[in-house]
Amino acid sequence: MNLPSSVRKLIQALSELPSIGPRQATRLVFYLIGRGEAHIHELARNLDQLKNIKICERCFFPTLGSEPRPQAGVGVISERQGVLCNICSDPHRNQSVIMLVEKETDLLSLENTGRFKGRYLILGPIPKTGALEDWQKLRLQSLKSVIAKEGRAEEIILGLNPTSVGDFHASLLIKELAGSAKKISRLGRGLPTGGEIEFADDETLGASLERRS
Amino acid sequence: MNLPSSVRKLIQALSELPSIGPRQATRLVFYLIGRGEAHIHELARNLDQLKNIKICERCFFPTLGSEPRPQAGVGVISERQGVLCNICSDPHRNQSVIMLVEKETDLLSLENTGRFKGRYLILGPIPKTGALEDWQKLRLQSLKSVIAKEGRAEEIILGLNPTSVGDFHASLLIKELAGSAKKISRLGRGLPTGGEIEFADDETLGASLERRS
Repeated sequence: MNLPSSVRKLIQALSELPSIGPRQATRLVFYLIGRGEAHIHELARNLDQLKNIKICERCFFPTLGSEPRPQAGVGVISERQGVLCNICSDPHRNQSVIMLVEKETDLLSLENTGRFKGRYLILGPIPKTGALEDWQKLRLQSLKSVIAKEGRAEEIILGLNPTSVGDFHASLLIKELAGSAKKISRLGRGLPTGGEIEFADDETLGASLERRS
Repeated sequence: MNLPSSVRKLIQALSELPSIGPRQATRLVFYLIGRGEAHIHELARNLDQLKNIKICERCFFPTLGSEPRPQAGVGVISERQGVLCNICSDPHRNQSVIMLVEKETDLLSLENTGRFKGRYLILGPIPKTGALEDWQKLRLQSLKSVIAKEGRAEEIILGLNPTSVGDFHASLLIKELAGSAKKISRLGRGLPTGGEIEFADDETLGASLERRS
């Protein structure tokens, strides 16, 4: 079956998105065609609006960045620089406590707890094998530059996943950031709330014993 | 966390697509922001190109419809009418053998076999409970109108899923279309190629006995 080229192109483009396969992409495209022109146009317009999004120059979270950059000359990095997100520009948050996370969605989950009042640095997904990417090293470098200007941070919290890969990179980061903060910590480990002891794995149960409180 | 409104809007719009939940939608949007402006714009443009897609007036499959409508006055139905897809306008295909399918993707799967040389009618997804929707009845009506003009079809094949819902609607359709075709058939049932007898369910194994060849 010769699909029209615009249909094939969009299926191809959607297939390249993370966790969408060719089959789901095909179904999505037929669904959209079924929804009609107005709906398609609206979605395309919503998508195009993303181009106004900038990246916060301190934490690298996407932001509209209506705040003007307060001081020039931090360090470098994004080609879309010069803006601060509303966490990094919030005087009520402790800018001297910095949580390193891998993903934007990790930040959202932590914000949803309402229990962290510091700021973040989004490091990007940690490679399953090997070292950090160059752009990730630049992000670390920018954090160190800010700290060098503003004085040693109170605390850096490594909000990496509690996996062997996360543990490995955490140990590297602790060395790398040793001079930048008075304290470097990781998120607590133990039994997840609502979990059952009977079904907890050895590592989790062991951690809950060691870190009992 | 106050996400920029364009980000929230797009997450919302993507969450409404079939089989995409809010969590996946959020990840997709951050992924797109990470890919940068050019990529976002390209995807929006690809999406917007769908608006040129029309629906074949005979089988209701999406098409570019470069073919002009050969004769006026078939019957009715789509607001985007007046075009034929390349199956319905192909003189080498037997226009008198018609396969009813639920979904566009079913048509694609059948075409991939390369073993069907008739044409199709896309009926739309059959409701899990209750009768066909009004627009589905209109599609059936349009098929009957075409057949009334062109003469009784050789065969109508009901390409519905071999489920109890599919079976139920097939029995209704057989009555409904009785006068329109010399023969009404369903897709064969039995053991799937590559399957194992040991693991086949009773219904499948029973069908394979009854329809042995």
